[in-house]
Amino acid sequence: MIWFNCDYSEGAHPRILERLAQTNFEQTAGYGNDPYCLQAAERIKQLCQAPQAQVHFLCGGTQTNLTVLAACSRPYQSIISPVSGHINVHEAGAIEATGHRIEALPHENGKITAAQIARVCKAHWEDDNPEFAPQPRTVYISFPTEYGTLYSLQELQDIRRVCDENHLFLFIDGARLGYGLTAPGNNVTLADIAALADVFYIGGTKIGALLGEAVVIVNPKLQKDFRYFMKQKGGILAKGRLLGIQFLTLFEDGLYLQLAQHANDMAALIKTVCKQAGFSFLYDSPTNQQFPILPNEMIAELEETYAFAHMGRVDNRHRAIRICTSWATRKEDVEQLTADLQKLAEKYHVAHRVSLIER
Amino acid sequence: MIWFNCDYSEGAHPRILERLAQTNFEQTAGYGNDPYCLQAAERIKQLCQAPQAQVHFLCGGTQTNLTVLAACSRPYQSIISPVSGHINVHEAGAIEATGHRIEALPHENGKITAAQIARVCKAHWEDDNPEFAPQPRTVYISFPTEYGTLYSLQELQDIRRVCDENHLFLFIDGARLGYGLTAPGNNVTLADIAALADVFYIGGTKIGALLGEAVVIVNPKLQKDFRYFMKQKGGILAKGRLLGIQFLTLFEDGLYLQLAQHANDMAALIKTVCKQAGFSFLYDSPTNQQFPILPNEMIAELEETYAFAHMGRVDNRHRAIRICTSWATRKEDVEQLTADLQKLAEKYHVAHRVSLIER
Amino acid sequence: MIWFNCDYSEGAHPRILERLAQTNFEQTAGYGNDPYCLQAAERIKQLCQAPQAQVHFLCGGTQTNLTVLAACSRPYQSIISPVSGHINVHEAGAIEATGHRIEALPHENGKITAAQIARVCKAHWEDDNPEFAPQPRTVYISFPTEYGTLYSLQELQDIRRVCDENHLFLFIDGARLGYGLTAPGNNVTLADIAALADVFYIGGTKIGALLGEAVVIVNPKLQKDFRYFMKQKGGILAKGRLLGIQFLTLFEDGLYLQLAQHANDMAALIKTVCKQAGFSFLYDSPTNQQFPILPNEMIAELEETYAFAHMGRVDNRHRAIRICTSWATRKEDVEQLTADLQKLAEKYHVAHRVSLIER
Amino acid sequence: MIWFNCDYSEGAHPRILERLAQTNFEQTAGYGNDPYCLQAAERIKQLCQAPQAQVHFLCGGTQTNLTVLAACSRPYQSIISPVSGHINVHEAGAIEATGHRIEALPHENGKITAAQIARVCKAHWEDDNPEFAPQPRTVYISFPTEYGTLYSLQELQDIRRVCDENHLFLFIDGARLGYGLTAPGNNVTLADIAALADVFYIGGTKIGALLGEAVVIVNPKLQKDFRYFMKQKGGILAKGRLLGIQFLTLFEDGLYLQLAQHANDMAALIKTVCKQAGFSFLYDSPTNQQFPILPNEMIAELEETYAFAHMGRVDNRHRAIRICTSWATRKEDVEQLTADLQKLAEKYHVAHRVSLIER
Repeated sequence: MIWFNCDYSEGAHPRILERLAQTNFEQTAGYGNDPYCLQAAERIKQLCQAPQAQVHFLCGGTQTNLTVLAACSRPYQSIISPVSGHINVHEAGAIEATGHRIEALPHENGKITAAQIARVCKAHWEDDNPEFAPQPRTVYISFPTEYGTLYSLQELQDIRRVCDENHLFLFIDGARLGYGLTAPGNNVTLADIAALADVFYIGGTKIGALLGEAVVIVNPKLQKDFRYFMKQKGGILAKGRLLGIQFLTLFEDGLYLQLAQHANDMAALIKTVCKQAGFSFLYDSPTNQQFPILPNEMIAELEETYAFAHMGRVDNRHRAIRICTSWATRKEDVEQLTADLQKLAEKYHVAHRVSLIER
Repeated sequence: MIWFNCDYSEGAHPRILERLAQTNFEQTAGYGNDPYCLQAAERIKQLCQAPQAQVHFLCGGTQTNLTVLAACSRPYQSIISPVSGHINVHEAGAIEATGHRIEALPHENGKITAAQIARVCKAHWEDDNPEFAPQPRTVYISFPTEYGTLYSLQELQDIRRVCDENHLFLFIDGARLGYGLTAPGNNVTLADIAALADVFYIGGTKIGALLGEAVVIVNPKLQKDFRYFMKQKGGILAKGRLLGIQFLTLFEDGLYLQLAQHANDMAALIKTVCKQAGFSFLYDSPTNQQFPILPNEMIAELEETYAFAHMGRVDNRHRAIRICTSWATRKEDVEQLTADLQKLAEKYHVAHRVSLIER
Repeated sequence: MIWFNCDYSEGAHPRILERLAQTNFEQTAGYGNDPYCLQAAERIKQLCQAPQAQVHFLCGGTQTNLTVLAACSRPYQSIISPVSGHINVHEAGAIEATGHRIEALPHENGKITAAQIARVCKAHWEDDNPEFAPQPRTVYISFPTEYGTLYSLQELQDIRRVCDENHLFLFIDGARLGYGLTAPGNNVTLADIAALADVFYIGGTKIGALLGEAVVIVNPKLQKDFRYFMKQKGGILAKGRLLGIQFLTLFEDGLYLQLAQHANDMAALIKTVCKQAGFSFLYDSPTNQQFPILPNEMIAELEETYAFAHMGRVDNRHRAIRICTSWATRKEDVEQLTADLQKLAEKYHVAHRVSLIER
Repeated sequence: MIWFNCDYSEGAHPRILERLAQTNFEQTAGYGNDPYCLQAAERIKQLCQAPQAQVHFLCGGTQTNLTVLAACSRPYQSIISPVSGHINVHEAGAIEATGHRIEALPHENGKITAAQIARVCKAHWEDDNPEFAPQPRTVYISFPTEYGTLYSLQELQDIRRVCDENHLFLFIDGARLGYGLTAPGNNVTLADIAALADVFYIGGTKIGALLGEAVVIVNPKLQKDFRYFMKQKGGILAKGRLLGIQFLTLFEDGLYLQLAQHANDMAALIKTVCKQAGFSFLYDSPTNQQFPILPNEMIAELEETYAFAHMGRVDNRHRAIRICTSWATRKEDVEQLTADLQKLAEKYHVAHRVSLIER
């Protein structure tokens, strides 16, 4: 089997493993107070053009989301998120478990708009008894989204403006940030993200690290006492350098973006073949996740060789799947897949132009 | 500087790093459903002589404690712990943050007794309105304790009996379990722990791993739905094999106990020298943490070369320190330290037999 | 101004005040352990034909909902509710603040169906990683609903069956229970409610009491330790008899249902006049809340004399309002209102048969 | 039986019941937005000489404590309290259930000192990793204490100074405030309380009301959004006027302090007799709770006629009891009790001067 089912099937980029081995017997302070964490944090701040920011390292996405959102919120405050947001569908109620309501808005291609956010706030504050509903306080969006799509710079600026007007924090989940930054057509830079968000994170787990997410806290209000939140949620590693070394390796000379670029390039090959074969897509993603809509029989035959995720029924004869590349995806595997896609497309005389219907 | 300040100053045992490198490009399922996690779990159950147990892998001690105790408790139930318990003093209120009160009992050498636990339960249930106080539900103890001391098998059996009589779960924090199991004078085996506790964990972070704790859930009541708790608390790693590979390496052929034994041996050398030089100890620990009481001037001079933790003032002229060895402690460093201890002991003409006063 | 804006504008039925005065200087035990609470509980169990049930008295609806749902749920479990459920829209995130996600389903006339509930459970349990989403555990519905509508006995039986099949508790919010039980066309009895729900409550605040809700716990699993939840949430009154005396007065000889019947009768008068005048309704309610759709100008003129709630725009020329009667509504006020409704209907030459469009 | 076991055995002062009856059919806004709540709040602010304060009404002590402390605290912050504090011993873990640790300090006569508080803060902030323990944020004390004792003005001023120096809120639990303000020897006024505390409450339940506590929020930081906390915790009554009417009645012309004075006078009679008979006291209380230490046989005989609380064993032959008077205590009952105390004291030839030993 060749796995395209997610972007965390392998271990870490070899340079990370080498660096861990090289530094293995150095004695360093624990809890993220070691030189590697400090250097990695400095480097990330530099790349973000945000010298006043704080950078902290956590183990995984759910942990990061629940820790950051706890820091953003008083007990009666809610988080605005797309219905499709990771926090809303795939974290076992982690946010609610910290006491907060997620105000989930209908999404389009995994995205919400500034106008939607403004409407939620207007409705809240115009109510006779606003205190009878949770108070909107933070906007949670993902870049790229859970469906691989991207906000444009203008869309992010509009959301920022609405956040400013409504006293909202903007938190950007960057579990796959690199895949977004290096995507064709993207016009958002890391520095833009840092300038627009109050807090965001740079995902390592899905782009080359064994584990790790780098939280960048831009807004000083959220910086204060953040390590208390980390500790209380079980998020401070004794051997914190494990995270610092990885992020230093990924960011000191551009490795992170190279790895992301590779995944996007591999995904683009798959996308092109699907398009040429006349298949539609559930979402039009320029990043490492592709959601082609394929005939049921073709999916069944593909599954004999490839692992991928299922996105549900589109019509009686078609389903959508998710094909995921990563920093570790081998070109020969992609070539085999694209060849098979072409071959099977002909075999099944597919009805092209399947209408785009979301699951 | 030579560091004796904790048991997590270095990385991982080299065999772990090698194994990570060897398996790096294998594609495995995520979230702990990979073959390494499964094999490691099987191996641990075998060593525990607990085939019906569940084994789960988490990243660190605080995360493990808060996840396990959430699973043990209904919202109105409390956890009985020694005042000196890690959950009570060093976890930023992580347990209270899950909604539970810690009923902290006076400790002796880091330990509590079956009789103390029985008294708490008796007082609760004899109250006219027991529902006006949290209901005791779980006993939390550490083996070894935070002060390096050990419960005897009899003491643990007594506690178990009181737990049975009072409908209590027994949770044993084994962040340093190996150091306890291999300590001179210890009469408790891994199988004993598994037979007596409802749930416990085997610490990897402090004994050879980069990170990781293996939770062994013996009581079926606590097994049900435990992965929901793990996910909700951010404790399921995408690349879960990172933990499985480490524990498999530590347990497949006895490496774990060898590493622990080494640390204990190194600590014993230090202990012997301190004793011979006439120093007293804050706690009489047979494990990798030693708490000698030394003259203030001697501590100051030691600090020029060695890093260690401070345990507070004993009298006007003496303080206690904590010297910690680990799996990675080098024999030559210990020899240098013991030589220095001997030399400085003579230099300061220490007043021997300082009375044992706890901080 | 004459108030039809809610069913809690006045104090309590005079017999309650008299009873409080008569018993005022009796010395009784606190915390709900007094004879009045005990008698009221016995009487309610008798009327419910549920001798094995527990009855507890709490102060208000939000307090009751959050206390009961905390008792129903482990930390990773969710509550299924209509989007329009009181817990989902009007309780300031009280349920999420106890750590639980509300799985809100689209409603029709304030109701959800057995089939919807079954689909949620099926989707959860068929997921590859069910533990990545909260586990459905409790169904929350209101009788009558927030829009005054009623579940039929068959609908409730169907929901019960789905709950049994999916290991779900059924919790019925009866803040306005009496209004439902005495509504024209209703075929559900108090004993039916007790037979079908695991737990429900009988609202006093909105039907004749100063404050108070009587929680009836039918399922023994939820009975255990319920008073701990009550105490921890601040729900045990020192002078608990205040609640017991009120419920005893309401239930010892049928006062509760008489009061509810009166409110329904008053609402029916208003409903009939609106219908005769050709107005449509946002929801077809047989209980004390009526939601007529009226021309904007007519609403403006009504507001000079009457207080009522606004339910939002229906089309360019019409809005829906909520007119609420209660046990305390005076017949002469209703007669004045119906006369005004008739007069204004003619004045504005209303376009009849406005299509039923939900806000 | 004559009950001296608590101060909430009866209903409400008759003037309150009369006022409820008089206003019963007035139609008012719900949720505490009625004229009575507004007038009562204004009157209390006037009496507190705190025009900038906010006043809110809640149902009971535990509810008030958990709501106020939630508003005072970020998730990682703790509450400093005497071990004997109501929140620490008698609220079923309500505070921990909101996520916060209670840092319980040894008490003397139910009180803690400024120096103790300062030491806790110093220890926290001097730790190498302060974020590994909850951060002290609020001091909780009771006036009078749970043992009927009082802080002097100087003691409160000292605590205030330490709070200012350490960025702490001061929250004073005034469940029995009136009994403290009217006690012999007390030198603290209501205005002093309002000037020194950031937030406090005036207990109604135990001094003449059916139920109700008036929270006075002096510090503007705690005023913002407080009603969200109230609503989320189930603390906003639909018929909020029930509380407003009661507090208006108690405070418009001094009734509250008269009722408290009466209880203190009754307690003083009992105290005097016990003293004259040579009995010692567990705590030296000038308020409505008295804790005499009596011979076991005498207690047994008293219990045939009187109900009171037990405070535990003092020595082999003596136990302490709690005798509680209230606004409703009848003088003839006290006279009967004092006569019996005198008679029994002679009968048992008691050994006087029992040493003061705390339970």
